[in-house]
Amino acid sequence: MAPYLTDWRGRYTGDALAVVFPDDTVQVAEVVSVCARAGVSIVPQGGNTGLCGGATPLARARAVVINLSRMARVRALDAENNTVTVEAGCTLASIQEIAEGIDRFFPLSLASEGSCQVGGNLSTNAGGVQVLRYGNMRDLVLGLEVVLPDGQVWNGLRALRKDNTGYDLKHLFIGAEGTLGIITAAVLKLFPRPRARSTAWVAVSGPTAAVGLLKALKSTCGDRVTAFEIMGRPALELVFKHIPGARPPIDPLPAWSVLVELSDTVQQEGLSALLERALADALETGAVSDAVVAASLSQTKALWSLRENISEAQRIEGVSIKHDVSVPVSRVPDFIERAGQLLEARWPDVRIVVFGHIGDGNLHYNLSRTDAIDNQAFIGLTPEINRVVHDLVNSLDGSISAEHGLGQLKRDEITRYKSGLELDLMRALKRTFDPNGIMNPGKVL
Amino acid sequence: MAPYLTDWRGRYTGDALAVVFPDDTVQVAEVVSVCARAGVSIVPQGGNTGLCGGATPLARARAVVINLSRMARVRALDAENNTVTVEAGCTLASIQEIAEGIDRFFPLSLASEGSCQVGGNLSTNAGGVQVLRYGNMRDLVLGLEVVLPDGQVWNGLRALRKDNTGYDLKHLFIGAEGTLGIITAAVLKLFPRPRARSTAWVAVSGPTAAVGLLKALKSTCGDRVTAFEIMGRPALELVFKHIPGARPPIDPLPAWSVLVELSDTVQQEGLSALLERALADALETGAVSDAVVAASLSQTKALWSLRENISEAQRIEGVSIKHDVSVPVSRVPDFIERAGQLLEARWPDVRIVVFGHIGDGNLHYNLSRTDAIDNQAFIGLTPEINRVVHDLVNSLDGSISAEHGLGQLKRDEITRYKSGLELDLMRALKRTFDPNGIMNPGKVL
Ligand SMILES: Cc1cc2nc3c(=O)[nH]c(=O)nc-3n(C[C@H](O)[C@H](O)[C@H](O)COP(=O)(O)OP(=O)(O)OC[C@H]3O[C@@H](n4cnc5c(N)ncnc54)[C@H](O)[C@@H]3O)c2cc1C
Ligand SMILES: Cc1cc2nc3c(=O)[nH]c(=O)nc-3n(C[C@H](O)[C@H](O)[C@H](O)COP(=O)(O)OP(=O)(O)OC[C@H]3O[C@@H](n4cnc5c(N)ncnc54)[C@H](O)[C@@H]3O)c2cc1C
Repeated sequence: MAPYLTDWRGRYTGDALAVVFPDDTVQVAEVVSVCARAGVSIVPQGGNTGLCGGATPLARARAVVINLSRMARVRALDAENNTVTVEAGCTLASIQEIAEGIDRFFPLSLASEGSCQVGGNLSTNAGGVQVLRYGNMRDLVLGLEVVLPDGQVWNGLRALRKDNTGYDLKHLFIGAEGTLGIITAAVLKLFPRPRARSTAWVAVSGPTAAVGLLKALKSTCGDRVTAFEIMGRPALELVFKHIPGARPPIDPLPAWSVLVELSDTVQQEGLSALLERALADALETGAVSDAVVAASLSQTKALWSLRENISEAQRIEGVSIKHDVSVPVSRVPDFIERAGQLLEARWPDVRIVVFGHIGDGNLHYNLSRTDAIDNQAFIGLTPEINRVVHDLVNSLDGSISAEHGLGQLKRDEITRYKSGLELDLMRALKRTFDPNGIMNPGKVL
Repeated sequence: MAPYLTDWRGRYTGDALAVVFPDDTVQVAEVVSVCARAGVSIVPQGGNTGLCGGATPLARARAVVINLSRMARVRALDAENNTVTVEAGCTLASIQEIAEGIDRFFPLSLASEGSCQVGGNLSTNAGGVQVLRYGNMRDLVLGLEVVLPDGQVWNGLRALRKDNTGYDLKHLFIGAEGTLGIITAAVLKLFPRPRARSTAWVAVSGPTAAVGLLKALKSTCGDRVTAFEIMGRPALELVFKHIPGARPPIDPLPAWSVLVELSDTVQQEGLSALLERALADALETGAVSDAVVAASLSQTKALWSLRENISEAQRIEGVSIKHDVSVPVSRVPDFIERAGQLLEARWPDVRIVVFGHIGDGNLHYNLSRTDAIDNQAFIGLTPEINRVVHDLVNSLDGSISAEHGLGQLKRDEITRYKSGLELDLMRALKRTFDPNGIMNPGKVL
């Protein structure tokens, strides 16, 4: 059972009476009913790639892990309606392939897409690099099937774009990290397949210039702006240090880089021209100091792999204190400046690795010391450092978990930032759906 | 008090102890607290344009109407974050203007936009002609402020694109028609302003061809497809009969017409060329038999006014039995064919006025008899006719209220179609938020 009792980062390990692999919704319902009667708690699990320990049982728990992997059927595929109805255990990558197979596109894209599953994506309301254009997982779903904590099956598998007949129950289960029920199937939206892509690496003078560039691009290119990722120099230096073959696209590497991607259903030439024109305008205003537009698919891939390898390069470099935060886009520059000042004042040799989805106001903000021995001591300061970063985020009306959820990791931390009233409402909802508290206890709340 | 005690269609009239017009959230909370203590029920009201009697108190009710009209301040406008924070009493038209004022766009657009209010739009999860591209009101909001049925104020006014810190409470209040709390303010999303629009009137052989055309347009034009409205001949004949100056754009009028609109942030010429090419392709495949692309703003307006005047023309013609239904887009042709067969078999002289947002699977499906006297008797058959239409919708996995909500009008009807489990969950949520049942009783549930 071991692989199912430890989380992906190896930070949490728990106990379980059993790990079960149901084959269909009826089996899930039966297992849940048995557990409910026996007072045994339940931990829903998908690909087990979550980053907050949500899919790991607690230590010494009387729990059963229900792993959805075997439930990976496509129940319906409707090209005219642009929907696919799938079971929760389908991997994200398989959904992308199904969409492609009928000349459609499913936009959610994560580095974990080969392993993570639809049920996990929904339960964590996953994000990624294309949220700017297509939204989070929450925005990509029309209907759900859920096994409730008493074993009843709610069939909300509607494939409708419009339905105003009462409370929208599905949104309660999305992002609930398995604490209100087990998602067994979903109706997902499909999109027209982009046929043109244009990608650029852009040197900007700082976060304020990045936000200005985003504004200009959105105004001229509209929905074509598909990704807009910022990367600070220290993040990329780790990539050049640890990833063989990685080279700076602009030399010398600027303090701040942005990776921009436009996409469209028509005309490759038109799209590239549009991007070049927009960047030329930005060069003139001084917001941009240099830019490289990818001229081939392999150049596009090379640019993206720099962004995508930041996490791996960090892993090789060693442990760091990670934050997944969001603030209003307009306040990102403020956040970056003030967080840097606060941290450097107290820990002068802190290394700040910042990168992420600035178009969504979402930054990965990771802290360490360059010297490995010093870093050990630094990591011991995690609670203090979280306090500095999260208090600042909160003062800027931001969120201490933009993408990854609360799980076990931030269950206590959130009580400092959410109002007592909101926490009470969440607890009331939990009691309404799961009065005996058997569904993924110790997570979220 | 009379204007506040009758609904827009004049179908419901109720009683109230008072109509109050609070000036700010504190006053709303005070009124709610007083009502809660006194056991007096509360009816939230916005522009009172709702079509299901949701904002009208019940007859002989011990109720207070809380009308939000005086709460119409803009609390914050953030161009970089593309958000505006407004009070619930702002009219929809005023939001559109605010967005334009900073070169942005707010896409919700309804014929009632001069009167209806943000609080009402949110509480009914309003739709309209641009849902195809931008989604329903639910998709256009990031945060809410709500006065709960006990008078506490939940501040969920977050302006974040990503926030995964527990259950998403705002979605419970959206579409709840004022039965769970009073929305006092909201953070709305703004979009890049379209600078090019291209509009066409298209003759199609029938609903199947319309769905095929939509598919082809989406595939080539992607997100540019902003509106796609179908109109049957009888709907347009009423417009030509009753609206002075209305002329068929294609003569003779085809059995089925589609109004298509593309929009984009760039290049008027490119957009028109794209639409013309797509329509030329469709003409070749035979899906389209004729098409007219508007060559000027006044032509565009003339085409749209045909679509927009259908409701008014129906009103002049006389009463009809109206349905606001949705099915998966792929099943719209099936619905139209089978509904016609079922109805004509039982009522051979029925006049079927069908039009609406076929791109969302949402049709307005209205039935009458041409002779006014016959029609009186026919209207008396409403329950039987609803049964035929709604049972068919249900068998096609559709919704009996796509856009307008349940209110008083469909509160009983929905119990035939929603599962007992789903109704139980809705009732449990209602009890959790409003244990004494004072918030808009007799609506939705
Ligand atoms: C390399 C890597 C890159 C990543 N990149 C991103 C990123 O860019 N953006 C992002 O948002 N996340 C990212 N993640 C986090 C993670 O992949 C996502 O959160 C993913 O959605 C989790 O899916 P899973 O199937 O692995 O869920 P699991 O880890 O198995 O579970 C996650 C949570 O959901 C619950 N759950 C799982 N399945 C169900 C179900 N069927 N019903 C009810 N509850 C269920 C679990 O109990 C747990 O609380 C990344 C992770 C890794 C390892
Ligand atoms: C000519 C016309 C055209 C229309 N076209 C469309 C259309 O295309 N698409 C569409 O979806 N609808 C349409 N409608 C219906 C209606 O305009 C919309 O539903 C609108 O959103 C209602 O807003 P309102 O402010 O008038 O709400 P009201 O009628 O005042 O209230 C509607 C419901 O919301 C509740 N409510 C109102 N304000 C609040 C608040 N602040 N907090 C909590 N609850 C509240 C009320 O109790 C009631 O249940 C149309 C109506 C008319 C008259």
